[in-house]
Amino acid sequence: MDQSAPSAVSPGTLEVVPLGGLGEFGMNMMAMSWDDTTILIDAGVMFPDPDQLGVDLIIPDLSYVDARRPHVKALVLTHGHEDHIGAVPHVMPLFDGPVYGTAMTLALVEPKLEEHALASDDRLKVVKPRDVVTIGPFTLEFIRVTHSMPDCVALAITTPVGLIVHTGDFKIDQTPLDGEHFDLHRFAELGRLGVLALFADSTNIDRKGFTGPEIEVIDAFEELFTSTSGKLVVATFSSSIYRMQILVDLAVQFDRRVAFVGRSMVKNAEIAQRLGFLHVPSCVQIRESDVPGFASQDVLCITTGSQGEPQAALPRISIDDRRFVRLGPDDTVVFSARAIPGNEKAIARTMSHVARRGADVVTDSIKHVHVSGHGSAEELKLVLSLVRPRYFVPIHGEYRQLSQHARVAERVMAGVEPKLQVLLAENGDIIQFDRRGGRIAEKAPAGRVLIDLTRIGEVGDEVLRDRRHLAADGVIIAVVAINRQTGALVGDPELVSRGFVVAESDAGAMFRDAAALVAECIAGSSVEERTDQGLMTEKLRGELRRFFKKRSGRRPLVLPILMEI
Amino acid sequence: MDQSAPSAVSPGTLEVVPLGGLGEFGMNMMAMSWDDTTILIDAGVMFPDPDQLGVDLIIPDLSYVDARRPHVKALVLTHGHEDHIGAVPHVMPLFDGPVYGTAMTLALVEPKLEEHALASDDRLKVVKPRDVVTIGPFTLEFIRVTHSMPDCVALAITTPVGLIVHTGDFKIDQTPLDGEHFDLHRFAELGRLGVLALFADSTNIDRKGFTGPEIEVIDAFEELFTSTSGKLVVATFSSSIYRMQILVDLAVQFDRRVAFVGRSMVKNAEIAQRLGFLHVPSCVQIRESDVPGFASQDVLCITTGSQGEPQAALPRISIDDRRFVRLGPDDTVVFSARAIPGNEKAIARTMSHVARRGADVVTDSIKHVHVSGHGSAEELKLVLSLVRPRYFVPIHGEYRQLSQHARVAERVMAGVEPKLQVLLAENGDIIQFDRRGGRIAEKAPAGRVLIDLTRIGEVGDEVLRDRRHLAADGVIIAVVAINRQTGALVGDPELVSRGFVVAESDAGAMFRDAAALVAECIAGSSVEERTDQGLMTEKLRGELRRFFKKRSGRRPLVLPILMEI
Repeated sequence: MDQSAPSAVSPGTLEVVPLGGLGEFGMNMMAMSWDDTTILIDAGVMFPDPDQLGVDLIIPDLSYVDARRPHVKALVLTHGHEDHIGAVPHVMPLFDGPVYGTAMTLALVEPKLEEHALASDDRLKVVKPRDVVTIGPFTLEFIRVTHSMPDCVALAITTPVGLIVHTGDFKIDQTPLDGEHFDLHRFAELGRLGVLALFADSTNIDRKGFTGPEIEVIDAFEELFTSTSGKLVVATFSSSIYRMQILVDLAVQFDRRVAFVGRSMVKNAEIAQRLGFLHVPSCVQIRESDVPGFASQDVLCITTGSQGEPQAALPRISIDDRRFVRLGPDDTVVFSARAIPGNEKAIARTMSHVARRGADVVTDSIKHVHVSGHGSAEELKLVLSLVRPRYFVPIHGEYRQLSQHARVAERVMAGVEPKLQVLLAENGDIIQFDRRGGRIAEKAPAGRVLIDLTRIGEVGDEVLRDRRHLAADGVIIAVVAINRQTGALVGDPELVSRGFVVAESDAGAMFRDAAALVAECIAGSSVEERTDQGLMTEKLRGELRRFFKKRSGRRPLVLPILMEI
Repeated sequence: MDQSAPSAVSPGTLEVVPLGGLGEFGMNMMAMSWDDTTILIDAGVMFPDPDQLGVDLIIPDLSYVDARRPHVKALVLTHGHEDHIGAVPHVMPLFDGPVYGTAMTLALVEPKLEEHALASDDRLKVVKPRDVVTIGPFTLEFIRVTHSMPDCVALAITTPVGLIVHTGDFKIDQTPLDGEHFDLHRFAELGRLGVLALFADSTNIDRKGFTGPEIEVIDAFEELFTSTSGKLVVATFSSSIYRMQILVDLAVQFDRRVAFVGRSMVKNAEIAQRLGFLHVPSCVQIRESDVPGFASQDVLCITTGSQGEPQAALPRISIDDRRFVRLGPDDTVVFSARAIPGNEKAIARTMSHVARRGADVVTDSIKHVHVSGHGSAEELKLVLSLVRPRYFVPIHGEYRQLSQHARVAERVMAGVEPKLQVLLAENGDIIQFDRRGGRIAEKAPAGRVLIDLTRIGEVGDEVLRDRRHLAADGVIIAVVAINRQTGALVGDPELVSRGFVVAESDAGAMFRDAAALVAECIAGSSVEERTDQGLMTEKLRGELRRFFKKRSGRRPLVLPILMEI
């Protein structure tokens, strides 16, 4: 970590430093400091592009947090999505204080701490909307917002220089499934009291109008429950608890059993039921292994894999590689999620595999089976109108969304005195507020840290790779040519290494064995796996990593490059 | 090429072999054979995924054409899009006969032949809709269809076993800008005469309803011409001649000058004007170099780069790297094209660069500035209803689109006797039609050939790489770590080679110089270039290829792997 980071804030100054999520989607994180107190807001991850070979997860550069280490007093979480809580296990070891979040949010954090062998002990502090918590000079209030999952909050933070409002992620769902409404009244009161600065979600600033409520998808699913004569398989995000509830309710109505399929789907369904956010009548839920015991028309599977992720449930099901769930011509597979940019090709491949099984594929372009969790332009304007801040900092988006949100804000607040000031900040910008006003001052260190994680492995078997130190274990590149039609290996796999040092006598044999392993792995895969670059790259990567770890005790970065010919 | 390919067709049998476009988008091509006559329909390219490092273009495997070489009598083109004509220069050397196409189509083929130093001499034969051409046992008729560019045709091919209809790409534009209507009447007549098999475009089968006409975008652009106080910059496909005409007409109306910006945009505008498909009053058109001489509010630029391609005009403009066109706060940049799957990230990066210049970004999600060139479900059904074929072969799409089109066709033709037979074929399937009917028989060789082309280089400086023979020149992988904020190089570039053989004494110095070249190239780039992975990868690739070619006389595959840290 960079030790030159500033560790002191200017006296009489509130310093807010976005560490992720401003200039990109994902990895949301922010630090807020006054004197010798720093609080952190959210600690999210980002998922890599397909061309970021060998990277599993991306977290914010924590140098700034490290430099403020003795002063960090708390971590505050707005909700339980990965882009807000995924990096919590990496941040918690850097300070001693509590982690605040709602019950659902913290319940999703807990298993992450277990995976990292971190004691959650008594640091996790459950809060409810309208609760107030004091941390040094800061007084935090949690405010109910609606989003695509339950138990989400915005933050109102009273600081020595004024009131800061941070929306978290939100839309304004006026008919929420759980009856827990967006707290418009509190936002209005805060606006009346006077808000120094609003930090607001920019994700859907490009969409006109109002994002629909979650229950809008019910009509389309009713049609699908009516028309499907075989299994109904719905892929969605495993955090979409409302979507799950809608599907479970329809399953009860149409007399189907429900199986949650995929690790995170099973886990989250369990957590949500335990906390009372998801209600599944006991006779309705079945295990994945029970699926073959029921007639197809009596089954609903709710699965992971809506993004075509090679290891997730639906992509495996789509190539007949999941023991208990098979697809046939009477089945319908629904993609009830948006495509995260970069995943379009993997999703299209999964859909084609499903079509090959003869099953019907339903997407949002065919029926209204997905609704966004982020507010559109009119909702974002509404929050601005209610809060009437003096300063506005758009957050959560690429630069274009942030600058578009800034334009919209200026239009909404035109004519209001004093004139709204927009601070168009990016990650690492030090935003200062003091008696004279607000401004973007110098830069704090910010950036990305890439994480390379072996999924199948012991607890905590994870490498936090600062790529500056990549040379420590080196890189192994496996160039593999595959026949596009048959998936057969063409020629011999070529293994190239750099910075991967082993005793000279071993190297030749090790690389020959690795090449043989590649050939074996390809021969042992089905044609559909072999001709799906995403799946095969992932499989080879896992095999080679295990091989090199076992043979050399080292953990080189393994990059299989598949060439279809 | 594989010499074991079948070179003879069964007697009394029509054999149709799709060589590209069935099971994928792009690279459309088909061979149709009877006895010792083969005709080819279209010869398209496909563009690589961002993760297909080192590949510029993809063309169909031509082994089958090669095996039928003496029998190939003609190539017939449906229209001038790259995914239908891009591989013409690779196919023409394989046979001696004519290439048929409309005036616009062949005008777009000509410069390709020049680039490949191929004589176009008298092989290019211009045809018009309703023209009839006889090639051995085949009689071909060209039928007008509407699409996103002018002068597109479908084919009606009379064969010894019956009539085959191939739609090419189409939508049914009922108010075409040039008054040239989709020839519904001829499709109806063919249906009445009796059609053995219909091969039809499946691209937009997922979209409900009817695709709108091209002129639908006029309203949105009128608003933009009215509201933009600075330059108006519109990125679109360089083949979208109708879109250009709409923009030029509005420019005349709103008193702006028009500059075509980007190599292919300038070239296609010139061709379209020469052939009378595009009308630009002489006082309205200006050159790119004239742009700085006019006030911003008097200029419209129509540019390439709607897909965020690193070398195209708009992405360069967006980082202030194009001499005559600069963006400022009063300007508006319009993305008037769909995102081709796989390009979403590059497009988003370009948009953010534009936003940083302060210009407004307008996309299809904000205003209706793009309309598809492919028919939606109702148009596809209409063609089925008119043609009433006995056999149906969905073409142009991934497997999912093809199978969805098959379902729709069965529904449209339900109750019609004899029952419609769907042949759900993929690339390489040999589709046979004889007196007993139609079926998918065995497999012909089919696949992809990757093309690695040095853009900056002498005429014909292009490598058609069969990756089986990659070892001939080897692979060089440059692993470069870049600071995400500053774009500065972190550590030394690591160069790894495989199968790239040079005299031992040279190798060390050559690799040291190459590493120095990488460092120099990064130091000499702007921060925005350096932090844009797509741009920087492309730039390093070009530099390293030229370097290794010059120093070694060899042409290794160069893969820069950029890691942002």
